[in-house]
This record gives sequence, C-alpha cells and structure tokens, in this order.
Amino acid sequence: MRTLRLIGIGPGDPNLLTLAAVDAIAATDVFLLIDKGASTGELADIRRDMLTRFAGSDHREVTVPDPPRDRDPADYDAEVRRWHGERARRLYAALTGSVPADGSAAILVWGDPALYDSSMRLADDMVATAAAAGELLDVEVIPGVTSVSALTASARVPVNRIGEPIHITTGRRLAQTPVGADRNQVVMLDAHCTFRETANADDLIWWGAYLGTDHEVVIAGEVGQVGEQIAATRERLRAEYGWIMDIYLLRKP
Amino acid sequence: MRTLRLIGIGPGDPNLLTLAAVDAIAATDVFLLIDKGASTGELADIRRDMLTRFAGSDHREVTVPDPPRDRDPADYDAEVRRWHGERARRLYAALTGSVPADGSAAILVWGDPALYDSSMRLADDMVATAAAAGELLDVEVIPGVTSVSALTASARVPVNRIGEPIHITTGRRLAQTPVGADRNQVVMLDAHCTFRETANADDLIWWGAYLGTDHEVVIAGEVGQVGEQIAATRERLRAEYGWIMDIYLLRKP
Repeated sequence: MRTLRLIGIGPGDPNLLTLAAVDAIAATDVFLLIDKGASTGELADIRRDMLTRFAGSDHREVTVPDPPRDRDPADYDAEVRRWHGERARRLYAALTGSVPADGSAAILVWGDPALYDSSMRLADDMVATAAAAGELLDVEVIPGVTSVSALTASARVPVNRIGEPIHITTGRRLAQTPVGADRNQVVMLDAHCTFRETANADDLIWWGAYLGTDHEVVIAGEVGQVGEQIAATRERLRAEYGWIMDIYLLRKP
Repeated sequence: MRTLRLIGIGPGDPNLLTLAAVDAIAATDVFLLIDKGASTGELADIRRDMLTRFAGSDHREVTVPDPPRDRDPADYDAEVRRWHGERARRLYAALTGSVPADGSAAILVWGDPALYDSSMRLADDMVATAAAAGELLDVEVIPGVTSVSALTASARVPVNRIGEPIHITTGRRLAQTPVGADRNQVVMLDAHCTFRETANADDLIWWGAYLGTDHEVVIAGEVGQVGEQIAATRERLRAEYGWIMDIYLLRKP
C-alpha cells in the first residue's frame, strides 16, 4: 500500500516546522509539487530549501502542472470542486508513476492542512481515484502552525479577549458575518482589504504579510488610522515581490 | 534586560514541538511552572519530559503556586483579571529571584499562546510589574500547533468546507452563537458537553480528548448517534485519569 502524507509546514519559516514534519519529510520518497506558475517562485524556493535541509538524499520531486481554473465562474463551489477533481486525477497519476507499491509520497502544505486548504479533500479524491483502480492509498496528516498563530505571535496579541469567541472568515464572506460573531475576526484570502467596507473607524486591526519569511511585515492600529496604509502597503509589496500572502485580525473595541 | 519567552508546545505530543520551540527551550535559563495542583500531574510529566529532552543541562525549574480563584464569581471577567494580576506578581517575583539580569525565563504554553490562553496578558502584566520597579522585560512569543489542528489532523477532516467561515467558541458561550455563524464551530473548554443542548440530531461532531498523548481518543458521527457516547466517554476517562482536555468540531450538514 502506498502512503500519501499531507505535511503542514507552517507559514514559511523553516523553524516553524514541527519535529513530526521534519521526520515525515525525511521518511518520504517522492514530493509532489503543484506548479501554480512563476508568481509563487519564492514560495517554491522556501519549500525546496526545506527539502534540501530535511529530505533524504535519494528523495525525488515531481512537479504536476495545476489544471486551469475559472476564477469568476457562475457557480463558484461547483467550479472549485471540478478543479479539485482534475487536480486529484493528475496527482494520483503522478504518484503511481513515481512511487513504488510500498512507498510514500508527500504534499507540503502551507500552514495547517485543515484550515482553508484543499489538501484533505484532494487526498480523499485521490483515495477514491485509487479505489476505482482497485488500489489502496493510506493517508497521514501532520498538523502545522497556522498563519493565525504566526500573526498573533509576531504582533504579540491574543486572538481573543477573555472567554470571547473568534470568527475566521474570508474577504469574500466578511460582510456576511452576523452581528455578535464579529468581535474578534480573523480574515484570510482578502485581496481587496474588505475591512475598509465593513469595519468601523475605531475597530482595531493587526495585519501581517509574508509571515515567517524575511519580508514579514505587521501593521497594527485603529482601522481609521492605518486602514489605507495597509491597503497601500499591500499593493506596493505585491507589485514589488510578485506575490503576497497576508492575513488580519479585526477586533471590536 | 531579562527575556521572557512564551513557548507554544502544542497539544501534548513532543513531536509537535516546532524547531523554534526546541531552540527556545535549549536557550532558556529558568522555566517557570505554574502549579495547578495534583490533577494536572500527567500534564506536568509531559512538560518535564520535554525539558529533559531539549533543555540545557544547567537549566532550572521554578514552581510558582497558582493563586486561589473564585470559580463562580458574581463578575466573571473581573475575577479572572484579579486572578491573572496576582499570578503575574507571583511569577515576576519568581523570575527576578532566579534569573540573572541578562538571563531568560520561559513559560511553556499548551497549544498556541494566542488561543484561549492567558499567557500574553500575563506577560503584559509582568512587563507592567517590571516597569513599576524600574526594570525592563523583553517578551518573545513562539507560536505552537493548536489542539484544533491536532483534532482535525487525527480525524482527517478539514475544519471548514470550501470558503465557509469557522467559529471558535467555548461551552459557556456556545448557545449564543448567532445563526449564520454556526455552520462550522470549534468548541473548547466545555465540561458539560453543551452540544447536547444546542445541536440538531443530524449535526456532525468530531470530538477528541488527550490529543497528541498516549490516551488520545476521537469519536465522530451525527450528534444524535454519538452525542451520549461522547458524554459518557468523557466522564469515564476524566474519572480514570483524573484530568481531561478535550475539544470538538460541530458542523451543520
């Protein structure tokens, strides 16, 4: 039986790998890399540095081109599911083509594999693809440090005040957060700095980008005072580096 | 200047320490241990095992008795603040009594220091106590793997479905989660299995206890089918081991 490992590698700093992730990397025969194009070249470099440090000397890397995706579909969820299914078939073909029948492959996942990441669904789709071919695929998940934890550690701010709930959402859904769930919000995948439309001027924000990398930047303050600075900084850095990964904590006073 | 490190050590498995946490443990002179009494003896053992493996040979451990706390106060938040303040004064006295003027102390924090943990507020209170004495205290935070990530990795379930928000709350507040924020809920600190009062029979639950330890147990299914089993298992294991730490993910179908 082949093994597929989903290894959470944290937000970018190799020192935020867990010992379990280091052991899992060392034990893996083949690393499946999803090629998302040149814009993530620096992220690919960080990942390759981790392999250079921790992978076995005879490990191999197999790059699988990411299938094309409609980013503005009529049915968003259906298009994401179609895209994930095609990705799973391509990856399973790459796995069987490169990993011996008792060997192991791994996918390195930024942050934690359970949080706003498709890798567990991808693994389920790959298990189904395997089963349809009469084959077995074992899946192991190694949890990782999230960018939420990296942000709050760098900013030295608890994600919640005493006893309060936390809402984690996306830029796309931010405006739909119900009243009463919006006292502490963590927002991911927000290319438009949507907080400028939803937050009050005296709401507090802690924004971080490139967390755990050499480019790490954190801006904190009241939305009315730092909101436009965050949006301008985001735009400038994205243009300068060619990519950005960012996240923010938004808090009612 | 003295340094205080808040080191996230993950949910219990020493292999879920990050490399940064291992390095921070190795670099620390004195570990401040908060003594919460005999009921957490096994947790103290896990923590001491980590020190045996990773701390310098000349490290010291200073145990600080936890101040008494009113667990059923008229003003819950005020009592928690009072209790935290007293704990900070005791810890800062222990720190200055044991750490040289350029040395370092650390507090090992289960999971991640930002999530439902008082250590960052404690550090702020200790910095204030230091300032009042004309002294400086530098604080470093090392993020950790959360029990949320440990649960979802063990159960192999994403914490959210595609694009959906996640609400993290406590047993105490669970009944107050607004409609629309309750599709994916992570519930912590729930001694009463409150989901039995708030969830529908066909809601899905993934419950985990002692995550990352030898006692780890995960029960998953529909609330109507496994809810009472979870409550009974929780009660039985808490009695058997003398302590329990558990968490669950609750999902609308």
